[in-house]
Amino acid sequence: MTELTIGVDVGGTKIAGGVVDETGRILQRTRRETRPDDADSIVSTIIDVVRDLVGEHTVISVGVGSAGFVDAERSTVMFAPNLAWRDMPVRDLVVAATGLPTVVENDANAAAWGEFKFGAASDVNHMVCVTIGTGVGGGLVLGGELYRGAHGIAAEIGHFQLVPDGRLCGCGLRGCFEQYASGTALVREALILAKERPTEASRLIELAGGDPGAITGPMVTQAARGADQAAVELIATVGRWLGKGLASLSALLDPEVFVIGGGASDAGELLIGPAAAEMSDKLTGKGHRPEPDVRLATLGNDAGLVGAADLARI
Amino acid sequence: MTELTIGVDVGGTKIAGGVVDETGRILQRTRRETRPDDADSIVSTIIDVVRDLVGEHTVISVGVGSAGFVDAERSTVMFAPNLAWRDMPVRDLVVAATGLPTVVENDANAAAWGEFKFGAASDVNHMVCVTIGTGVGGGLVLGGELYRGAHGIAAEIGHFQLVPDGRLCGCGLRGCFEQYASGTALVREALILAKERPTEASRLIELAGGDPGAITGPMVTQAARGADQAAVELIATVGRWLGKGLASLSALLDPEVFVIGGGASDAGELLIGPAAAEMSDKLTGKGHRPEPDVRLATLGNDAGLVGAADLARI
Amino acid sequence: MTELTIGVDVGGTKIAGGVVDETGRILQRTRRETRPDDADSIVSTIIDVVRDLVGEHTVISVGVGSAGFVDAERSTVMFAPNLAWRDMPVRDLVVAATGLPTVVENDANAAAWGEFKFGAASDVNHMVCVTIGTGVGGGLVLGGELYRGAHGIAAEIGHFQLVPDGRLCGCGLRGCFEQYASGTALVREALILAKERPTEASRLIELAGGDPGAITGPMVTQAARGADQAAVELIATVGRWLGKGLASLSALLDPEVFVIGGGASDAGELLIGPAAAEMSDKLTGKGHRPEPDVRLATLGNDAGLVGAADLARI
Amino acid sequence: MTELTIGVDVGGTKIAGGVVDETGRILQRTRRETRPDDADSIVSTIIDVVRDLVGEHTVISVGVGSAGFVDAERSTVMFAPNLAWRDMPVRDLVVAATGLPTVVENDANAAAWGEFKFGAASDVNHMVCVTIGTGVGGGLVLGGELYRGAHGIAAEIGHFQLVPDGRLCGCGLRGCFEQYASGTALVREALILAKERPTEASRLIELAGGDPGAITGPMVTQAARGADQAAVELIATVGRWLGKGLASLSALLDPEVFVIGGGASDAGELLIGPAAAEMSDKLTGKGHRPEPDVRLATLGNDAGLVGAADLARI
Repeated sequence: MTELTIGVDVGGTKIAGGVVDETGRILQRTRRETRPDDADSIVSTIIDVVRDLVGEHTVISVGVGSAGFVDAERSTVMFAPNLAWRDMPVRDLVVAATGLPTVVENDANAAAWGEFKFGAASDVNHMVCVTIGTGVGGGLVLGGELYRGAHGIAAEIGHFQLVPDGRLCGCGLRGCFEQYASGTALVREALILAKERPTEASRLIELAGGDPGAITGPMVTQAARGADQAAVELIATVGRWLGKGLASLSALLDPEVFVIGGGASDAGELLIGPAAAEMSDKLTGKGHRPEPDVRLATLGNDAGLVGAADLARI
Repeated sequence: MTELTIGVDVGGTKIAGGVVDETGRILQRTRRETRPDDADSIVSTIIDVVRDLVGEHTVISVGVGSAGFVDAERSTVMFAPNLAWRDMPVRDLVVAATGLPTVVENDANAAAWGEFKFGAASDVNHMVCVTIGTGVGGGLVLGGELYRGAHGIAAEIGHFQLVPDGRLCGCGLRGCFEQYASGTALVREALILAKERPTEASRLIELAGGDPGAITGPMVTQAARGADQAAVELIATVGRWLGKGLASLSALLDPEVFVIGGGASDAGELLIGPAAAEMSDKLTGKGHRPEPDVRLATLGNDAGLVGAADLARI
Repeated sequence: MTELTIGVDVGGTKIAGGVVDETGRILQRTRRETRPDDADSIVSTIIDVVRDLVGEHTVISVGVGSAGFVDAERSTVMFAPNLAWRDMPVRDLVVAATGLPTVVENDANAAAWGEFKFGAASDVNHMVCVTIGTGVGGGLVLGGELYRGAHGIAAEIGHFQLVPDGRLCGCGLRGCFEQYASGTALVREALILAKERPTEASRLIELAGGDPGAITGPMVTQAARGADQAAVELIATVGRWLGKGLASLSALLDPEVFVIGGGASDAGELLIGPAAAEMSDKLTGKGHRPEPDVRLATLGNDAGLVGAADLARI
Repeated sequence: MTELTIGVDVGGTKIAGGVVDETGRILQRTRRETRPDDADSIVSTIIDVVRDLVGEHTVISVGVGSAGFVDAERSTVMFAPNLAWRDMPVRDLVVAATGLPTVVENDANAAAWGEFKFGAASDVNHMVCVTIGTGVGGGLVLGGELYRGAHGIAAEIGHFQLVPDGRLCGCGLRGCFEQYASGTALVREALILAKERPTEASRLIELAGGDPGAITGPMVTQAARGADQAAVELIATVGRWLGKGLASLSALLDPEVFVIGGGASDAGELLIGPAAAEMSDKLTGKGHRPEPDVRLATLGNDAGLVGAADLARI
């Protein structure tokens, strides 16, 4: 009989949970709203989600994926920019309330692991997952193992510096990767285009009901799919920045595969085509080395949940 | 009784070999000149070096550290920019000639391993070694193991991009780390200063016998040790670029320690002081995370030899 | 008896007219709304304004200040980005309708002339006026004469390149001065700060009623006057970019005075203090040359009207 | 009968003089060596040159073209980076010694005037002359008159900033135009290419006798004329930077013609072709404005001498 685990994906405004089997299949799901500014309620909602699920399945353990810095013991969330948690002992609180063995993992790490075990990179041993949403997260699977770093905070791909003295980042630094290759970057560029060159951006402005400030990433993707040239170019610009970053990551980590996930990956080939071309163009030692594949994630929003569940087995 | 191995460090113009015990002590040394443009003679010189050493000690295996891309089987040097080797089966040739089990490793990886096992980082599990000479090499020890990447070519730290569309690099790209934080970069900046601002660079020009084109890295270090302000600032500039790179590496890899080796590390605190300050300043999540140490290498030129010898045990 | 002229300042949404004497005093004013997308109605509104004013004063000529490229004959507006005019023969149309000699001048040129004759630079012979509003306009008075260039389109200060491959500009290029040192630039930086670092930008967000997208330039100025540190720094950032541009303009044109006008000059010393410091810091030949003064405009919104009226005398 | 004047061109190591008629023809020439570090001997050599020439021709006045900042009275050289002069009253000294009315002019201004009166721009009223040698000088003729600025030091084209925080300049600033579009910049880029990519630069290294440090600008031009691809690209790179600068100058000054002189103009179309293309590409208001011509200077090394002679008539 198969052993089941629970995966919990803690987002800024909602918590998703699921019972997952050894093949990565989700047997049951649940979801709750939450308030990012109430540290205790986030924990109690996680516990509620777990209790819901254990009512109907026998599970052996729980994996919680959360934004932020998780310590190397996979126990405490030290700091999360968008949640109210500071040094929150999530693992111990969930164990105390549910009696189940629990691990906590950074959500981008969990998503990377999900794609590695059951998704786009299940055929390789070395992969880098780049999750592109509002910001950029990442996960490294090196030699078949999730790499967490000395303190559990490796793979902050969104915050390696792409441009010296570049754009201001939410982390307080300038020039971070996520200021160039994220959904936020895409929307910002679209807004500038709409304000500075409204004729070129007319389709985007139309989709936004006439208000450039209302343009969203999905609108840009929609326009680009409809062959709007400005939108195609906006996504390609973000893709080329992504490609520059992938080239640097290749020089450092020599992975077989990059998996691109997160909301921005909805743009599909419009994003990863330019990214892969730019990466190849900027690859050191080109011609004397194998080149990594650039692939779209295949698990969508479930990657983190499934990955966290699987990490709870180890 | 202790088991001994041989380490061989293959440079552009010379090959150094040594018999090394399990504590990293070198019991015997030898050294030969070689010609970088004669692919076969480099191999035969390596074999000569090994034969010399086995005459007096009983050794169990050989580790060869070489510049260039070494395949994941640690057998073949696929490409080395400064040697004549292309897809050279170094391991098999050495085995055939000496009968000893042999592994081939990238020289910066070998040096990193040496510092990890016996040098500046022997107290940690996660370290990044940056070797700063004419160019920049690197080695990653992650979770106590040397990380080679999917194809054996990880840790090309010198070629991750620091500045988009920046300075031309020998690898054909622009903006690579080693164009900003290497001995070559230091000399180039000194040359520009000497030509554009000769009064400020007067001490450097004097050390170079009056010819700005003759300024070398060691001259800049010498002047800086003598408190020449221009030289101190030149080294600090290179140090700050180094620090920017270390900050990005921290975001990705979360190491406990950076070890800075290679010829440029002779500048000591003059280099790593500014590097550590800049790294700390550019560290994402600063204040919510432990910060890595920045340390000088302790094994000097022996790091590669000792590291290669130790890797031959595994 | 003094000779009077009419000055007309044609803006995107309103047209201001006035009767002006030889000392720059405005004896009478009028103002009309207009629609920027109706080329003919703008002209007829100008004519209405002139007719209004001539009913009560005897005037000898008319000066019209308009955004856009005005030809060297000061007759035709060749192109105006924000008005519907293309090759519009404004002078001939006004002459035909009113019988008065008329000249047309670029509005930033007219404002520069106003400041030169009656405002902040009335004591010098060589001045550069930088008008900082949504965009950046400029006017050059060289050797006591307004400099228009070969085709009437000199002093497009807003569009010399400050940053190669920099921010997208409404003119279609990248890195133009006005993308760094305009009200638009100020608001954009404030928006980024508010989104990426909301705590630092809390006062600005409060002034904008909680909506970062509603932050305006005057709000930033208001907060800065109240010593809000983030707002002070935002204005100083814009000021430093302005100063970089002034330094380049000094190298080229060696003026005695820079006059800074337009809406952004409401920030007063908060803007021009950092601008003057940065200019001085970036001045070539510093120490071997006189340095230009940086002054605030003194005529406010009347500069263009008064300048256009005075240019109609020449 | 025609009136003759003397023009004197004061260089770092030599002084050239000539008797010039009203058509710009040089009737007689003389030339002397000089030492740039001996302030008095430069003046006495100028006087010797003038005395030589007046022995055989009746002249009415003398024009001296000199590097450096010349005051607005065209009398004193305030500062010259490469000569030993500081506040040197050149005019009065020459008048006292020769009895001839004398004017002193910046040498790039004199060359600009020469090209304007008798050379490449004799058909226009507004021109900008860019003299590209070791550094970059410039001269502005606006509305048919030489423009000197408020203090005589306008047209320091070499020192407007092209790249924020860019390459160190001899003037102490960073990112100056002359660090990107001068002979020095060309040689520097060639040196980097030769060191980093020796195979691509093999023809240049060959011309330099095997020593990359011996590559000169004329060697790059020679190689480019022989269709060496690396040399062509090096000159084009400098040309494109030049073009970026010309575009900014166009936005400010709206000239009819740019004249490109100095030693680097020997590269001819190889230089100004890419420069003109880049300028056109970066021209604000493109399509709505006339574009300036980019022309090669036609007077060669005589431009400064002939221009200084002609300025002595005014």
